[in-house]
Amino acid sequence: MIDLRSDTVTRPDDRMREAAREAEVGDDVYREDPTVNELEKRAADVVGTEAALYVPTGTMGNQVAVRAHTERGQEVLSERESHVVKWELGGMAQLSGLQVRTIEGDDRGVVSPDKVRENYVAEDLHRPGTGLLTLENTHNSKGGAAIEAEDIAAAAEAAHDLGVPVHLDGARVFNAAAALGVEASEIVEPVDSVMFCLSKGLGAPVGSMVAGSEEFIERARRNRKLLGGGMRQAGIIAAPGLLALENRHRLSEDHENASRLAAGLDDIEGLSVLEPETNITLVDCSESDYTAAEFLDACEGEGVLGVAFGEYVVRFCTHWDVGEADIEEVISAVGRAL
Amino acid sequence: MIDLRSDTVTRPDDRMREAAREAEVGDDVYREDPTVNELEKRAADVVGTEAALYVPTGTMGNQVAVRAHTERGQEVLSERESHVVKWELGGMAQLSGLQVRTIEGDDRGVVSPDKVRENYVAEDLHRPGTGLLTLENTHNSKGGAAIEAEDIAAAAEAAHDLGVPVHLDGARVFNAAAALGVEASEIVEPVDSVMFCLSKGLGAPVGSMVAGSEEFIERARRNRKLLGGGMRQAGIIAAPGLLALENRHRLSEDHENASRLAAGLDDIEGLSVLEPETNITLVDCSESDYTAAEFLDACEGEGVLGVAFGEYVVRFCTHWDVGEADIEEVISAVGRAL
Amino acid sequence: MIDLRSDTVTRPDDRMREAAREAEVGDDVYREDPTVNELEKRAADVVGTEAALYVPTGTMGNQVAVRAHTERGQEVLSERESHVVKWELGGMAQLSGLQVRTIEGDDRGVVSPDKVRENYVAEDLHRPGTGLLTLENTHNSKGGAAIEAEDIAAAAEAAHDLGVPVHLDGARVFNAAAALGVEASEIVEPVDSVMFCLSKGLGAPVGSMVAGSEEFIERARRNRKLLGGGMRQAGIIAAPGLLALENRHRLSEDHENASRLAAGLDDIEGLSVLEPETNITLVDCSESDYTAAEFLDACEGEGVLGVAFGEYVVRFCTHWDVGEADIEEVISAVGRAL
Amino acid sequence: MIDLRSDTVTRPDDRMREAAREAEVGDDVYREDPTVNELEKRAADVVGTEAALYVPTGTMGNQVAVRAHTERGQEVLSERESHVVKWELGGMAQLSGLQVRTIEGDDRGVVSPDKVRENYVAEDLHRPGTGLLTLENTHNSKGGAAIEAEDIAAAAEAAHDLGVPVHLDGARVFNAAAALGVEASEIVEPVDSVMFCLSKGLGAPVGSMVAGSEEFIERARRNRKLLGGGMRQAGIIAAPGLLALENRHRLSEDHENASRLAAGLDDIEGLSVLEPETNITLVDCSESDYTAAEFLDACEGEGVLGVAFGEYVVRFCTHWDVGEADIEEVISAVGRAL
Repeated sequence: MIDLRSDTVTRPDDRMREAAREAEVGDDVYREDPTVNELEKRAADVVGTEAALYVPTGTMGNQVAVRAHTERGQEVLSERESHVVKWELGGMAQLSGLQVRTIEGDDRGVVSPDKVRENYVAEDLHRPGTGLLTLENTHNSKGGAAIEAEDIAAAAEAAHDLGVPVHLDGARVFNAAAALGVEASEIVEPVDSVMFCLSKGLGAPVGSMVAGSEEFIERARRNRKLLGGGMRQAGIIAAPGLLALENRHRLSEDHENASRLAAGLDDIEGLSVLEPETNITLVDCSESDYTAAEFLDACEGEGVLGVAFGEYVVRFCTHWDVGEADIEEVISAVGRAL
Repeated sequence: MIDLRSDTVTRPDDRMREAAREAEVGDDVYREDPTVNELEKRAADVVGTEAALYVPTGTMGNQVAVRAHTERGQEVLSERESHVVKWELGGMAQLSGLQVRTIEGDDRGVVSPDKVRENYVAEDLHRPGTGLLTLENTHNSKGGAAIEAEDIAAAAEAAHDLGVPVHLDGARVFNAAAALGVEASEIVEPVDSVMFCLSKGLGAPVGSMVAGSEEFIERARRNRKLLGGGMRQAGIIAAPGLLALENRHRLSEDHENASRLAAGLDDIEGLSVLEPETNITLVDCSESDYTAAEFLDACEGEGVLGVAFGEYVVRFCTHWDVGEADIEEVISAVGRAL
Repeated sequence: MIDLRSDTVTRPDDRMREAAREAEVGDDVYREDPTVNELEKRAADVVGTEAALYVPTGTMGNQVAVRAHTERGQEVLSERESHVVKWELGGMAQLSGLQVRTIEGDDRGVVSPDKVRENYVAEDLHRPGTGLLTLENTHNSKGGAAIEAEDIAAAAEAAHDLGVPVHLDGARVFNAAAALGVEASEIVEPVDSVMFCLSKGLGAPVGSMVAGSEEFIERARRNRKLLGGGMRQAGIIAAPGLLALENRHRLSEDHENASRLAAGLDDIEGLSVLEPETNITLVDCSESDYTAAEFLDACEGEGVLGVAFGEYVVRFCTHWDVGEADIEEVISAVGRAL
Repeated sequence: MIDLRSDTVTRPDDRMREAAREAEVGDDVYREDPTVNELEKRAADVVGTEAALYVPTGTMGNQVAVRAHTERGQEVLSERESHVVKWELGGMAQLSGLQVRTIEGDDRGVVSPDKVRENYVAEDLHRPGTGLLTLENTHNSKGGAAIEAEDIAAAAEAAHDLGVPVHLDGARVFNAAAALGVEASEIVEPVDSVMFCLSKGLGAPVGSMVAGSEEFIERARRNRKLLGGGMRQAGIIAAPGLLALENRHRLSEDHENASRLAAGLDDIEGLSVLEPETNITLVDCSESDYTAAEFLDACEGEGVLGVAFGEYVVRFCTHWDVGEADIEEVISAVGRAL
């Protein structure tokens, strides 16, 4: 099977496994795990913030950040198709009592500063005040669009002018940086906090980082405890995370593979493919005889896995465990499948 | 001053005041207030449901209904500009932990069945299931649009086909019925619950009703207690409420006044007015030299009150305390003001 | 029937009804109801605070106050048997996400300063900080005990020394004042906010007051809107409330009646009665052949109503609608019942 | 330093590290991590339930279980000093809106069936119904008391008779089993779910288990996703967890060390020590010249770490990384410290 369902499926390599075995550890709730401490310092450096926090998942990272930025009863502005709205079980409302106010981004999920200003709500007798703007980069539901640093900065500036902090769901922010040819820190610079995943394209087995100011991270740390993310000898998984962080330099390979895949699939009759910006290839099969579900079944029969992203849209995600040869095989397999 | 800010400003007339004085009362928490009991029975009859509940405000009515229909962790579908989303302090998230998923209605706030189906979310590992659809009629933010019973029915049917109950914020449902020339019960028939206000165009001093099945009302009653709406000798305000209910037959006067007002104001240079469907007149002053705030100030100087509904939009709301002669005066006053 | 279930059952008298009819009203959400404004000013004066807020019920009064004093994630200290813990549907947790930490008061519900200090929790990584102390006076579950101003002050001082504000559930604070022979303002002076009911012994049909600093009341007002307590022409019920406020001077009659009742019932074989401090008489029937439920059934057969307060304890509550002669009749009736 | 602050400080041994390196892994959100699957199956077998779920921490385990058992608006019965009440940031209220009703256990934290029945609340108009009973074994705040299976069963039976499910916080349930000489499954048999930690005395670097019926575990799994506990290639930490599970057979060594320590410290003037039941030794220093904080400082100066459990009480916790010789050294060091 060639598994293109998600870049979360990547398996740690031998160096990561070796690092897990050799990790120096301590009790991270007491902040005595040297490997976690090193990872948090290193992660902060890489994205250019004062501090960072290791969390077991990206969902927890987003939820602790949202909670740390807001007060009871506020409203959060988020792009309509963003992960924190669609795929986190309504956690902002469920866990923190926050109403979401969704902003319609453009085709690539870019939120314009005008939309931020239009959707901002000043606190009054009838209305919750806007307490936070969340952005997402790359934008998963928009086919992994790599949003330019200037676009992030423009939306953030609009928010800041209104006194509203900004959190970036940067689960794949290093994919954005690679695609745009900039350092991630450039994308992160205008926002107040960022979450990024070690366990997606970077290939770590477990974990994500939240980064921001020291004061913010202290609040996020307490929220992590509340949600049950205060692990003990977490150095065992932080050690592969440290190596994963360096994998940001190889993400452009995944992007090239995604482009190869897109070109190959687009040649197949009945399929139309969006030119990928990063490692996500969205395939529209509405011109074939297949629904997304049927198309995926047929692919699985030929040894290829993807996921449905709509009734006639399938997502294939390239990653560390998939090489150029695999891509050729996927193109052939899909051809056979249809 | 002629006060067109809202139909909530109506003052009770002598009959209502007399009814308050003469009301037979008891302790309504023990369900022993005969006047409240009569009002609840009468209200249920008028909208064609099994039972009804008296609540101090429309906001409480919506919130107890939303809570009664849902389970912890679900998602609610609501029109993007609806009152329950915009003007209730995010209560669905704050009080009940529910994430809202907004649907873009059409220009009049009509939610199509297709939009209901598109926005429905089946509960799974990552997503809160859709637990409720809320509709609003008349639609306040859309200039008091009176949405046809068929449109309500179509959206409700789409929801029901998906196993999703429907609550109607009918704060002004009798305005809708009057405008459409139908009984309110015809509008309410396809939904599972309705809230309507006695204290808006109907002219009662205090109170709203929630109506639905007996079993639903029992749950709403408990939620009312939770939110602090379990009043005692509420018959004092339920008695004018009973008279207010009969005022539904005179709402077309308010609509005629709104039309008169619209025609008169539309003739004034710099103003453009949406033809009102009910008792709400939205005036666009962007072609004048005034912002909404400046325009309102000028009107106040001439003895007329309204409210801003946008940077260049002003809402005037006709009601029981405003007669035909007042409308003529308003038109003159606005002319002088500009 | 002589109804001693609660002092909430009192019916407004002719003067109150007349006041309802004649009340000057306006839209209280716009803060333009002169009668409500007068009531709020008068209520603040009576308890010696800067400001006050009219709410439909005591439960809402407590909930808006608790929410106004706290931040998300804090803990509230409350006496174990207090109303806000036992009888408000867990509103502090449900509506505001606050964990309650109960303090065991003494037999009369007095919370000692030592207990406040012992139960105080400093915010840290694992523990919610204590955000509020609530007290109750008179203490309903402890037979209407009238807690001395010094005891309130001692507990409040202990809380204040720890930086914790204090809310007093004074649903019957005027009963306490009457029993202790002090002004209510003396009891209220050491606390940060108080809720008291107009609709219990004071005899108003509907409503309670929250009182405190201006800044606190502004927050409480917004919370009132959230919970759905922003009524419109509430002057209709605020007017009888103004008269009810003066009824605080007659509460000692209810206390005398309670004492008479206690003495009479204590003479009946099988009953043992706690000497009442205010208007609540707790009767223990465990030495009779009856459970509380059976005893109440027998009483009802003889024309007397009370409520169960435990398996063998019955509460009778004296109030405005019950005179000395009624008390004699109740004693006879209970005698016949057993 | 000899670190007796907690059994959470244990470091994985070489076999565990080797297992981490060699673990077969997959994406556990897709339920495809064979090592996690094996651990979940094995854990369920060991405690005798249908199914189990791997979570990053004990706090998350408790919170997902509490949420899975209850509905919005219910009340939870918990022992007053239990971890879920004291040390989890009020998560039951904060995350799930549940009011806690605390039960006073006996000196060892045993909750009697009578107390369960007394504190049970039937749902009615004013009261949240009791939705869950939580128990804790061993009871951390009571010095690691190992509560007999019969006592757990008696409380559980009382709850079940009232229709209330029971969750056991068994963070150290294998310590209880070892001390009582029974299988953990015997303690777990009468309850509906159990949480136990792999990362305390069992020595795993990270993780806890929730166990119960299949249907319960499915709900817990969704709650785990909500709280952000859905990790990916978690086999890397599940593999040492599998070995840790076998360490339950060596916990009696820790208990013997605790007894040795208790005996040694009790001989030191100024200290009085509770005879430990498991691996927790509580030392009262109130007869010395030291507060707990001062005593701990002095100990640290001599190379021994513990934690304060009160103003004059210190907790020392024995575990896998501390041998008999270490205990002798601790006794000497404490002697020198005073």
